[in-house]
Amino acid sequence: LLIIGERINTTREKVAEAVANQDAAFLVKEARLQKEAGADFIDLNVGTFGEEEGELLSWLVSLIQEEVDIPLSLDSPNPEAISSAIKFVKRKPIINSTTGEAWRLKPTISMAKEYSASVVALVIDEKGIPEDAQGRLKIAEKLIESLSGAGIPLEDIYLDPVVLPIATGRRGKVVLETIRLMRETFPKVHIICGLSNISFGLPLKGLLNRTFLPMAMAMGLDAVILDPLDKKLMAALAASYALLGEDRNLKGYLKAYRSGSLD
Amino acid sequence: LLIIGERINTTREKVAEAVANQDAAFLVKEARLQKEAGADFIDLNVGTFGEEEGELLSWLVSLIQEEVDIPLSLDSPNPEAISSAIKFVKRKPIINSTTGEAWRLKPTISMAKEYSASVVALVIDEKGIPEDAQGRLKIAEKLIESLSGAGIPLEDIYLDPVVLPIATGRRGKVVLETIRLMRETFPKVHIICGLSNISFGLPLKGLLNRTFLPMAMAMGLDAVILDPLDKKLMAALAASYALLGEDRNLKGYLKAYRSGSLD
Repeated sequence: LLIIGERINTTREKVAEAVANQDAAFLVKEARLQKEAGADFIDLNVGTFGEEEGELLSWLVSLIQEEVDIPLSLDSPNPEAISSAIKFVKRKPIINSTTGEAWRLKPTISMAKEYSASVVALVIDEKGIPEDAQGRLKIAEKLIESLSGAGIPLEDIYLDPVVLPIATGRRGKVVLETIRLMRETFPKVHIICGLSNISFGLPLKGLLNRTFLPMAMAMGLDAVILDPLDKKLMAALAASYALLGEDRNLKGYLKAYRSGSLD
Repeated sequence: LLIIGERINTTREKVAEAVANQDAAFLVKEARLQKEAGADFIDLNVGTFGEEEGELLSWLVSLIQEEVDIPLSLDSPNPEAISSAIKFVKRKPIINSTTGEAWRLKPTISMAKEYSASVVALVIDEKGIPEDAQGRLKIAEKLIESLSGAGIPLEDIYLDPVVLPIATGRRGKVVLETIRLMRETFPKVHIICGLSNISFGLPLKGLLNRTFLPMAMAMGLDAVILDPLDKKLMAALAASYALLGEDRNLKGYLKAYRSGSLD
C-alpha cells in the first residue's frame, strides 16, 4: 500500500495556526513523524486559506522538502493553486486531485505532463458523483481515456472512488464495489481513497477507519490517504498485509509484533 | 450476521476440565455469557474426548438447553456423535459440519431432514481442500446440489469456504475470493466461517481476527463462528454493520457507542 500522510491539512486547527504563523518547526515535525510512521508521501492542503492558497502551498512545498526527504502530494481542488506550487517541487509529486470536469482535468493533464507528476482522479464529472458503482466506473473509464490518452502512464494514475461519510447515509458498500470493479477493469492503475472521510461526523472515527481499510484493501485498494500516526490503524494495516498474502512469510507482521508497535 | 459462539470447545483447556469434571456451572455460564454478548447459537464441541464424544455431547446438549434459551450448534466431524446428541435437541439446531465426503454427507442429510436441522457444509471432498477459489466453488456447487436436491431448504444451508491458518502459508485471499464467488452464485444460501482458524499459531490473534472479519463480511459472509466475548472483535462487527449499510441510521453503532461497548 502506498501511504499518503494526511496530517498537514489546514482543516486541522493546529495546522491552520502553524501555517498562519509560519511555524516551520511544527510543520516540519508533522512531516517527519509521518515519514517515520510509514508515509510514502506527505499531503499538503491549505485549502482553508482561500486566495492565499497558491502562495502558502508553494511556501509549504519549499519548507517541507528542504527538511524532509519525501515526495509530496499537492492537495487542492484548485488547479491554479497546484500550478503555483508544483514549480518548486523537486521529487516526483502527486497532484491531488482532479475530476472529470474539464476545468480541472485539462490543466491537471498539462501539469502532470510538464512535471511527470502522478494524478489522483476522483470519479466525479459535471453531473456530480454517481450514487452507484457502475456509474462511478463509467467516469473512471473516461478519466483513464483522457489521462492515458494524453500520455500519462497508467502507473501514474490513482483512481479515487470517492469516499463519502456514512454519517450522511452513504453506504460504504458502494465504494467497496467501485474499488472491486476498478481493480477488475484496470489492473495496472492505482486505486486510492481518502480513508477518514468515511467516519466524518461520527464518534470513534478510528474504529470506523481501521475497520474500513481492510475491507477496501481486500477489494483491491493499493494506495490511501490516512493518518500514519494512528497506531491502531497501522496495526490493522500490518494485519491486512498478513491476511492478504502481501507479507511474505509474515515477516513484517512478526517484526512489528516484536517491536511492540501492534499493541 | 448470525453469530455462533465458539467458546464451549474442549480444545480450550478449561472447557476440557469442566467437561471431564461435569462442572455444569462453568459450562452454563460460558453459554449464558455468550448469549448476552450477542451469540445467536452456542457451539458445542467435545471432539478431544474421542470415544466418549457422543455421550458427552448429548450430556452437554441437555445441560445447556435446560439452563439457557438459545439454539445449539453440534460441532463434530463425526456424524455418529452428532446423531447421538441431536435426539435430545429441543430448538432447531445446526449440524456443524459435513463435507462433500459421502460418509459424512449422507448421514448428515438424513439427520437434517429428520430434525429440520441447518447444516454447515465445508468445501472439502474426497480429494481434500482445493487450493483455489474456483475449486472450492465447484465443491460448493456439488454440496448445494446434494443438500438442496435432498429437500433441505437453501436457507438452512451454511456453506463454509474453509479458513486455514495464515501461519501455515495459506492466503486469506483465497477464502475471501471463495466467499465472493459463493455469494454471487448462491444469493440465498448462508456463508459461514470459523473465524479464529485464520490466526491459529500467531501472536495477537485478536488483531488478525478482527481485521479479517470485516474483509469477509464485505465479501458476503453472513454467519460466523467466533468468540463473542472478544470485545474488540464485537466492536469491529458493529463498525462493519455501519460501514456496509446494514445498520439503519447507524442506530446500532451509536447505541453501542453510548453504552461504552465499543471502547
